[in-house]
Amino acid sequence: MKESELIISRIRKSIGVDTANLHEPLFDGNELYNLKECIDSSFVSSVGKFVDKFENKLTEFTGSKFVVAVVNGTSALHIALVYSGIEPNDEILIPTFSFVATANAVRYCNAIPHFVDIEERTLGLCPKRINDYLIEIGIIKNNVLVNKYTQRPIRAIIPMHCFGHPVDMEGIIDIAKRFNLIVIEDAAESLGSFIKGRHTGTFGNLGILSFNGNKIITTGGGGAILINNENDFKKIKHLTSTAKLYHKWEFSHDQVGYNYRMPNLNAALGCAQLDSLPRFLKQKRNLYNNYKESFSDLNFVSLFSEKENFQSNYWLNALILNPGFQHLKEDILAETNGIGIMTRPVWNLLHTLPMYKDFPKMNLDISQDLFERVINIPSSAGLIHGNN
Amino acid sequence: MKESELIISRIRKSIGVDTANLHEPLFDGNELYNLKECIDSSFVSSVGKFVDKFENKLTEFTGSKFVVAVVNGTSALHIALVYSGIEPNDEILIPTFSFVATANAVRYCNAIPHFVDIEERTLGLCPKRINDYLIEIGIIKNNVLVNKYTQRPIRAIIPMHCFGHPVDMEGIIDIAKRFNLIVIEDAAESLGSFIKGRHTGTFGNLGILSFNGNKIITTGGGGAILINNENDFKKIKHLTSTAKLYHKWEFSHDQVGYNYRMPNLNAALGCAQLDSLPRFLKQKRNLYNNYKESFSDLNFVSLFSEKENFQSNYWLNALILNPGFQHLKEDILAETNGIGIMTRPVWNLLHTLPMYKDFPKMNLDISQDLFERVINIPSSAGLIHGNN
Repeated sequence: MKESELIISRIRKSIGVDTANLHEPLFDGNELYNLKECIDSSFVSSVGKFVDKFENKLTEFTGSKFVVAVVNGTSALHIALVYSGIEPNDEILIPTFSFVATANAVRYCNAIPHFVDIEERTLGLCPKRINDYLIEIGIIKNNVLVNKYTQRPIRAIIPMHCFGHPVDMEGIIDIAKRFNLIVIEDAAESLGSFIKGRHTGTFGNLGILSFNGNKIITTGGGGAILINNENDFKKIKHLTSTAKLYHKWEFSHDQVGYNYRMPNLNAALGCAQLDSLPRFLKQKRNLYNNYKESFSDLNFVSLFSEKENFQSNYWLNALILNPGFQHLKEDILAETNGIGIMTRPVWNLLHTLPMYKDFPKMNLDISQDLFERVINIPSSAGLIHGNN
Repeated sequence: MKESELIISRIRKSIGVDTANLHEPLFDGNELYNLKECIDSSFVSSVGKFVDKFENKLTEFTGSKFVVAVVNGTSALHIALVYSGIEPNDEILIPTFSFVATANAVRYCNAIPHFVDIEERTLGLCPKRINDYLIEIGIIKNNVLVNKYTQRPIRAIIPMHCFGHPVDMEGIIDIAKRFNLIVIEDAAESLGSFIKGRHTGTFGNLGILSFNGNKIITTGGGGAILINNENDFKKIKHLTSTAKLYHKWEFSHDQVGYNYRMPNLNAALGCAQLDSLPRFLKQKRNLYNNYKESFSDLNFVSLFSEKENFQSNYWLNALILNPGFQHLKEDILAETNGIGIMTRPVWNLLHTLPMYKDFPKMNLDISQDLFERVINIPSSAGLIHGNN
């Protein structure tokens, strides 16, 4: 049997059906009920009880002290950078192994993405190698890390919890303290993922979530900012709400604000989805376990598994071709997609995209190697209900 | 009777009830049906048939050749400026008599809002006085209008159809031709407003609409870009969709894109709302007629009416205190809001806001004068159904 045929047979065995999308949302809770209530209330837009409710539920679930819901994960990241005081030409350390929004948000601030490498253990930023790299290229001047080669300040680092698998945040926080970096945690994919019981996105100065249609829960489009203290919360809420000053009828604003508030309609969907999240997490773990068992007898591929003390949401399961088998990637992608089993490779590495190819970067060999070996396979919570 | 009491009695006579919000949406069509269909399809996010349908319906209604739906009016304006090639330090002519988003979108591009004045006849930009002003301060160098005093290029003009009342676009287009300006038409408030039968937002190089909760139709949050040709349409669609290149499974992007796509869930609501728009327009015109009649006997105030050849959507009715009666404004606002009839003044003039006070401006006496005299009164389509 050809390797792609083996992959197809193992996926089918795990999901119990012949074809599958990569990731579909599941609406089997109070979604329609909430939407009806939202429409009946006539509050569908930036004001309404579902926005508050959704923010409160997220606070409760993640353990973040405060949450602001916004239109999408990209806008959450943008606001996190703006609010952190990122200035034009500041360098921001980001993984090249990420969705393009991570880099785009940096560019919206006219700041400079500086690409750093990941580790295979987590698929996220590698604290050890980044530490060594910063010692080599950086110098601390007046409490600010400066890139010796570009003379620009290196201001922040954005670890991204790839496919829901937690980054080594202890290591990242150590680096941030040593080099005086702001940490903005890109938890767009990791709602429901924890490190030693603490939710991803709550370790950094700010964290962000996404509720895009392909995420573990969806609000249509949506995102959120996870915030540690009330002062930041109030200011970020203000910044995302056109910086309007409270008055019963006057319209006045005190800074350049953004129209990034999540509409109540989308929050209504989000509230129902969030109620189902614990169940989705179970279903996704069951699916992962099925995959784990099915793929255990193949010698050319491994399934990515959470590390000790890390609890992944298994948002998107990842097969990793074993070293020496990367030549199989294109054939597996073509064959699976050809018969209706949607699979995908990792995003093209950000530092290779035309608009990002001339920005600073460290050696990115691990990202390059994993780019050639990772394949995501169908991971919808709705694919499986058993094994509870 | 005190003037504020007269105002209250005339409003109550016109709307037939004792209290009213300023503007509420009306969901008495297929809203819930569409939302259910959207949820059932599982496509709630950036892909789905309602987005295409909504764009097509908007194309049909406005007569614009192409339409791209986005997350809100602010993002539509931002994209229109980005796509038009606005560069940092370009000056952009905008009314000071507008919602803050008009200026904010300019600042997102690091461009310079240059505030210009309106005329009482339309509540929109005054072509004659702006023409004279540009002759005075501008000089054409290499086909580019340059501000003699700042040496910065004056690149574009953003007429805004205030409260739904059309600006004198013929006059604006004349100026744009004379001074080589890009015209971006801010039709956020004027869906359903026409000039000689042609829809507002279709006169400029690009136009934008808003479907915020307070607009004539709503998608929760939403906006659209009105586009004249297919090439621009394709490029703008690309720019608002993270600039992702089409591929069955690969993720690649060729420029810094934006995550501004309208989610399918919001478009589902929009499709139902758009079906009701012709009826809303009638109801709003009926309400305007009621107000017109009720206020006709008061000597200190006038109701704003559309000009010949201009067809207003009467999104937000505006009372204008007659010259000499501006001292009544605060009392009328306090008394009406105090008893549950929501009214509001115009936005604080943009050039008076702290973040915009140091930007260039022409003499803004008319804006200042009207700021002191305009009061918006309840204008929901749902307030009235009769007189068809």
